[in-house]
Amino acid sequence: MSDLEKVLAHIDADFDNALDRLFQTVRMKSISTDPAYAAETRACAEWHSQDLAAIGFASEVRDTPGHPIVLAKNHDATGTKVLFYGHYDVQPADPLELWDGDPFEPKIATLPDGSKEIRGRGASDDKGQLMTFVEACRAWKAVTGKLPIPITILLEGEEESGGANLPGFLEAAKSELGADVAMICDTNMWDKETPAITTSLRGLCAEEIFIHASDRDLHSGFYGSAAANPNHVLARIIADLRDADGRITLPGFYDGVPDLPQSLRDSWDRLDFSEAAFLGEVGLSVPAGEKGRSVLEQTWSRPTCEVNGMVGGYTGDGFKTVIPAVASAKISFRLVFDQDPHKIRAAFRDFVKARLPADCRAEFTEFGSGRAVAFEVSAPVFQKTQQALSDEWGKEAAFVGGGGSIPVTTMIKEMLGMDVVMAGFGLSDDRIHSPNEKYSLTSFHKGIRSWARVLAAL
Amino acid sequence: MSDLEKVLAHIDADFDNALDRLFQTVRMKSISTDPAYAAETRACAEWHSQDLAAIGFASEVRDTPGHPIVLAKNHDATGTKVLFYGHYDVQPADPLELWDGDPFEPKIATLPDGSKEIRGRGASDDKGQLMTFVEACRAWKAVTGKLPIPITILLEGEEESGGANLPGFLEAAKSELGADVAMICDTNMWDKETPAITTSLRGLCAEEIFIHASDRDLHSGFYGSAAANPNHVLARIIADLRDADGRITLPGFYDGVPDLPQSLRDSWDRLDFSEAAFLGEVGLSVPAGEKGRSVLEQTWSRPTCEVNGMVGGYTGDGFKTVIPAVASAKISFRLVFDQDPHKIRAAFRDFVKARLPADCRAEFTEFGSGRAVAFEVSAPVFQKTQQALSDEWGKEAAFVGGGGSIPVTTMIKEMLGMDVVMAGFGLSDDRIHSPNEKYSLTSFHKGIRSWARVLAAL
Repeated sequence: MSDLEKVLAHIDADFDNALDRLFQTVRMKSISTDPAYAAETRACAEWHSQDLAAIGFASEVRDTPGHPIVLAKNHDATGTKVLFYGHYDVQPADPLELWDGDPFEPKIATLPDGSKEIRGRGASDDKGQLMTFVEACRAWKAVTGKLPIPITILLEGEEESGGANLPGFLEAAKSELGADVAMICDTNMWDKETPAITTSLRGLCAEEIFIHASDRDLHSGFYGSAAANPNHVLARIIADLRDADGRITLPGFYDGVPDLPQSLRDSWDRLDFSEAAFLGEVGLSVPAGEKGRSVLEQTWSRPTCEVNGMVGGYTGDGFKTVIPAVASAKISFRLVFDQDPHKIRAAFRDFVKARLPADCRAEFTEFGSGRAVAFEVSAPVFQKTQQALSDEWGKEAAFVGGGGSIPVTTMIKEMLGMDVVMAGFGLSDDRIHSPNEKYSLTSFHKGIRSWARVLAAL
Repeated sequence: MSDLEKVLAHIDADFDNALDRLFQTVRMKSISTDPAYAAETRACAEWHSQDLAAIGFASEVRDTPGHPIVLAKNHDATGTKVLFYGHYDVQPADPLELWDGDPFEPKIATLPDGSKEIRGRGASDDKGQLMTFVEACRAWKAVTGKLPIPITILLEGEEESGGANLPGFLEAAKSELGADVAMICDTNMWDKETPAITTSLRGLCAEEIFIHASDRDLHSGFYGSAAANPNHVLARIIADLRDADGRITLPGFYDGVPDLPQSLRDSWDRLDFSEAAFLGEVGLSVPAGEKGRSVLEQTWSRPTCEVNGMVGGYTGDGFKTVIPAVASAKISFRLVFDQDPHKIRAAFRDFVKARLPADCRAEFTEFGSGRAVAFEVSAPVFQKTQQALSDEWGKEAAFVGGGGSIPVTTMIKEMLGMDVVMAGFGLSDDRIHSPNEKYSLTSFHKGIRSWARVLAAL
């Protein structure tokens, strides 16, 4: 029996304990965007640090101006040095009333087809995913007494809230973080039977705007029509951001956005993808974005602009005839290829200012920027990872694009000069960021086994 | 000393007690739009009923399917029979953090110029205003042992929440409510020295819409651009409601809206009105509505559409990259002359439906309708009231238009066939519906004295 076979057998035997550890971290309300949960977020970092120390990592909770970062190293072995990145923070759980149970009391649910899933906020994003890697390390250590390769693990606590402090940390800790390749487990499988390595991600430019008019809320009977209404001004700005064909109207927005290279288009065409199934799963049927683009193009290779939140005036029960003093929106742009988030932020601010009528002013708050990113899959580490995943799942791992943004990927590439292998075991119906988030029990189990194989292969 | 002189002297002597009674009612959180305050709203009705009984009214708290109505009668005298209407419910007090103190713990504040004001939610709208009439009755009763004319008092508990149950009540209680004229104290003075009788009001058509798309909130990275975003759909609808000249674009919206009659225009031109001062008081400078119309025209004789509230997606602290399943808005139309609220509601719903892209659906909730209303001021009761107000304030009372909607005025006119004299002592800076609502101490004191004179004149 090879070491790898022993490690895989150990993973199977120890799986209930691995689940128990995952449940412990899901119970912690590490909601980074809400200051009310700062202490619980730190407690979650402490928990992970102690857990990594128990596996033999030299682990520390490092302070940042925001939530802390866990940094753990075990460089006892020689070979390909890996920097693993995960994040222990989670999205807010609201609206709570749409959850079937307490989002922070994880449980196993059995579906009608007999399959099982782990439910809870962060069960997939990213606690479940990051623990697949940690458990693989734990199994190697338990079986062989050491890790097969040198590993550094970095767990961030602000991925869901803009990640403002990560760049500074990476810059300051550059010399400690050096490695041959970075690995991130925060992405999806292609489908529930086909593992995937994500080779490109959209960038992000996130911004909150506030439109101010009168210096107080007004009665819409007395002032209606005469007073500027920030709700109308904001709605006009949002409406103007897209034209009738779904294209974003910011001047210069499509600079650096080429048509999809034919090779990529061919590779995506080979994927077994059903637009009807993808949209149908969430109650939709028609691609809403740019006309004449497929869903894969729209979400992997085309930029977009989404209003993630907007609010102004009275929004409680009943009716209040008020003209509000302020209205606001959280708006994010997903970027592709060479789009420059800073230029787009500037263009957006100009766009807003150009649409402010008399008596209105705009305030802006920046929430993170990241360029899009793409890797050449011919590099050996991508090939070896693909083989290891294919071995575990019995199906060739796909190289796919990604519509989301993992700004840390860009940072690692640009600041630390490494390739980043993004392999994850989420599924498209994991409801991450939504009520009833879940992680397939198979994802968790075979995810751990997958990483055990990747570590062996490297 | 005439009876009236004795009554006025009594009002002056008893003023501290009158204030104490007003404070008692302001302390009650009769927030009709929020079901959480249903019990306190009823308690407020009970308080008013007992207070009126103490003045010699036969008073009852009458149940409705919503909040109760107080109905009190004293028909011992002969003469012009008056139906007085007021409302004991108030608007929500949020945002609480913008209040200088507890909105439901009224207090007297002294301004730098030495003038005093009563602060609290409802201090003006409508508890302070309605108590001016009640205190005038109390004074007449105390001094002469009876009221000078037959009076019926009706106090509603749902004026701030759509008033859905008032029409049914008026219809059912028609025979009890018969009178020669109705009086309402829920309007403003022209300025702090000039009393006013409001002779026209805009109507209202209020509606809440919900735009639904996907069956759950989505991650904007995975779905952004491919999935319909209700925030964008709603923003487009709101933006489309007004054209570049500030005109409302609903088909047929301006049916029944004539140009301002010259006589009314002349009368308004004679008023000492400063657009700069009116707008400047709330931090604005430019009329925002229809181009080429004065502020008085815009707010008294032109219809409008205001978004009173809108919300969709994540609106808490920080950032959440979500595409929401639903977005909603509370929208109200202010109507003038012969605009039909039912036709406008239907046109609005058609307008929304015509703008729904694939995968989106709209839901509508109706919040009250009322036509605009106007009275002929040559009628004796208007002339007598004008004279009484002019006598009290030492300045001729103005006949003015009103931009707000008091649906009960229309109902009383249409269902009970009475003219309605709207005389009130609010000021434009009373911040009704806003934080730090106040009522000038002078408004309260001279308001009571004014009604005492009106009762004498009738």
